[in-house]
Amino acid sequence: MSRFAVIKGKHYRIFFDEELKSLRRFLRRGNYSSVIILTDSNTERLCLPKLVELCKLKNYHSLSIQAGEENKTLSTAEKLWEQLLPLADRKSVLINLGGGMITDIGGFAASVFKRGIDFIHVPTTLLSMVDASIGGKTAIDFANHKNQLGTFAQPKAVFISTAWLNTLPKEQLLSAQAEMAKQALLGGLNEWQQFVLNIDKVEFIEEQISEAVKFKLKITDKDLYEVGQRKQLNFGHTIGHALESFCLLKEKPIPHGIAIAGGMICELYLSVKIFKPTENIFSEQIEFLKNNFPKVDFKEKDVDDVLSFISSDKKNIKGIIKPVLLKRMGKPYWEKEVTIDLIRECLNYYNQL
Amino acid sequence: MSRFAVIKGKHYRIFFDEELKSLRRFLRRGNYSSVIILTDSNTERLCLPKLVELCKLKNYHSLSIQAGEENKTLSTAEKLWEQLLPLADRKSVLINLGGGMITDIGGFAASVFKRGIDFIHVPTTLLSMVDASIGGKTAIDFANHKNQLGTFAQPKAVFISTAWLNTLPKEQLLSAQAEMAKQALLGGLNEWQQFVLNIDKVEFIEEQISEAVKFKLKITDKDLYEVGQRKQLNFGHTIGHALESFCLLKEKPIPHGIAIAGGMICELYLSVKIFKPTENIFSEQIEFLKNNFPKVDFKEKDVDDVLSFISSDKKNIKGIIKPVLLKRMGKPYWEKEVTIDLIRECLNYYNQL
Repeated sequence: MSRFAVIKGKHYRIFFDEELKSLRRFLRRGNYSSVIILTDSNTERLCLPKLVELCKLKNYHSLSIQAGEENKTLSTAEKLWEQLLPLADRKSVLINLGGGMITDIGGFAASVFKRGIDFIHVPTTLLSMVDASIGGKTAIDFANHKNQLGTFAQPKAVFISTAWLNTLPKEQLLSAQAEMAKQALLGGLNEWQQFVLNIDKVEFIEEQISEAVKFKLKITDKDLYEVGQRKQLNFGHTIGHALESFCLLKEKPIPHGIAIAGGMICELYLSVKIFKPTENIFSEQIEFLKNNFPKVDFKEKDVDDVLSFISSDKKNIKGIIKPVLLKRMGKPYWEKEVTIDLIRECLNYYNQL
Repeated sequence: MSRFAVIKGKHYRIFFDEELKSLRRFLRRGNYSSVIILTDSNTERLCLPKLVELCKLKNYHSLSIQAGEENKTLSTAEKLWEQLLPLADRKSVLINLGGGMITDIGGFAASVFKRGIDFIHVPTTLLSMVDASIGGKTAIDFANHKNQLGTFAQPKAVFISTAWLNTLPKEQLLSAQAEMAKQALLGGLNEWQQFVLNIDKVEFIEEQISEAVKFKLKITDKDLYEVGQRKQLNFGHTIGHALESFCLLKEKPIPHGIAIAGGMICELYLSVKIFKPTENIFSEQIEFLKNNFPKVDFKEKDVDDVLSFISSDKKNIKGIIKPVLLKRMGKPYWEKEVTIDLIRECLNYYNQL
C-alpha cells in the first residue's frame, strides 16, 4: 500500500495518511469557527504534539480526559460539555484523537452538543482504526452497562496513520486482533486462513487495517441503524460485553478485544451446541483464540454476575437473548433464542478451558 | 373540523383525536415489549388517568418528573435513564404526555437511550401542540442555557386532543398564542389578519392548531436539520430565549411564549432599524403584541446579563449574531449581522414600552 490512500464510504471518507496532510487540508477547507482536539491522558502526551506539528495547527483548543474505559461516563461527558460551552459553536469541529474510548465519548458529546457539531476521528489504536472509528456509533457507559447511551452519528472523516501504533503497548495490538479475528470468522474460511497467516506480520498491518475498514464499511453503510445485516458485527459481543462489564464492575477493566475473544469462544461453543454440525467444526478456531488471547479471569461463583449483564444486554427484546451464532464459517445467524442455562454452560466451559 | 383527522408528515403522522382511539390502535399494532408513559407532576394527576382509561391500557409503566422548565436538565434526564434501565429495551416505546418540557426531555432521553428507542408525543398544552411536538427537535437545558444539548429525532407519531386544554391555566393558552403570532408574522398580512380575528374564538381552536401544525410541518419536513428555511422559525427566539434564560437564572421562570412575544417585539424593532422601510411598517403588530402579552420584567441594570445570553446563543457562528428579521410581513431574512449595541438599544426600547 502506498503511503496515502482513501476509502470512500457512503457518508464520509477514510484517509490513510502518515503525514496527516489530508487532515490539514480538511481543516483548512472546513473553515471552522474553532478546532477542538479531544485526547485522553495518554494521547495528550504521546500524540497531540505530533498532530499539532504535522497539521501546523496554530489556533486550536485541546481538552483531555483521564484514559480508561471506566471514564467513558456521563459525568465525563458533562465535564466535556461544560468545557465546550465557551469554545464551540455550531460551526466548530471536534477532533477525537485516541482509542475507541475517545472516539465513542467524543462522538457522543459532539453529536448532542447544540444538537450536533462536526466531529472527526483520528484513531490511535489498532482497535479503534478497524472498529470504533468506523460505522457511526457513539456511546458512553451508564450505570455500569456498556454503551447504554449513545447516538448514530457519522464523523465527517476518519484519518488513519499507522505511525501512532509505535506508541502502543503490545496488549493493545492483541486487543485489535480480536476484532480482526471476528471479521475473519464472519468472512469465511479463506478470510480466516489469511488472518491466521498474517496475524504477526507487521509489514502487512496497513493492508490488514484497510481490509478491515472496507469489511466493516460495506456492512454498516448498508445498515446504518442496525436493523438487519449489521447485527452480525455483534458476534462475540453479547457475552464479550458482559465479561467486559463484569471486569469493569470489579474494578479490573480489561481491553475490549480481550473480552470479545472470550465472548467469541463462548459463542462458538453455543453455535456448535445449537446447530449441531456433524464435524468438529470450530475446534481449530477455538484453539487459536485460546492460544492467542489472554483468558478473561472470573470465578465459578461470578457466573451469575456475568449472566445478569447478559440478561440486561441492550440487544435483548422482551428479555429474549439472541447472540450472533455461526452456522458455519462465514454464515452468521442472529434470530435464534438461547436459554440462560445454555449460556451458563458455555461460561463454565470457557472457565475450565 | 371533524372529531378525528390526520395530517401526514414526511416522517410521522399527527392525529387529531379526542377519544385517543388512534393511540390505542397505534400501541396495539406496535407490539411493543413495554409501554412507558412520561408525565410531569401536573399531567400525572390531570391527564394520565384519562389516557390510561381511553387507551384501555393494562400493562404500562409510568415515570413522572417535577413540572417546570427549571427541571429540564441533565440530572433529570439521568434519573429518567436510571428508571428506564429495568423497564425498557430497544422495542419499548416512551409516551411523552405533557407540555413542551416533557416532549423535549422525553424525546431526548428516548433518542439516546440504547442509541434510540421509539417515542411518541401526546402534547397537553396548546403551545406543545403547535410547536414543541412538531419538527423533531429534542432538548435539555445545560449550564443555564436553553436547549444546549439535544438531538434531531422524529417521534413515531403525535396525538393531539384538545380535551386536555380544559385543564390549562389561561396564562398557558396565551403562551401558545405567541407562537401562533410568530407564524402569522412569518405567513404574511392575510395570516396576520386571520390570527388577530380569531385569537379569542375558542370554537376555532382545532382549526387554529391544525393550521399551525401544517405550517410548521411544511417547513420542518423540507429542512429537518435547520440548514436553511427552518431558520425562520427562530423569529423572536434569539432575544426571546435570552429573556427566558435570564428569568430562569433569576429563579423567576416565565412561560416560553411570553418570552417569545417579548423577543418578537425586540426583533421587529431591529427589523425596522435595519431595513428602514419608509412607512411605519410594524407598529400595528408591536402594539398588538404589547397589548396581548404580559411584559417580561427586567431592570435596566439587567440588560448586560440578557446580552450575555444572546452572545452565547447556540445559533451564533464565530460570535456573530444573526437574529431572524422581517423585511416586511411574510418576508423573513436571517443572514444579517446585528451588532450588540443595536441589540442593547432594542432591549432598552422594549423595557421602556
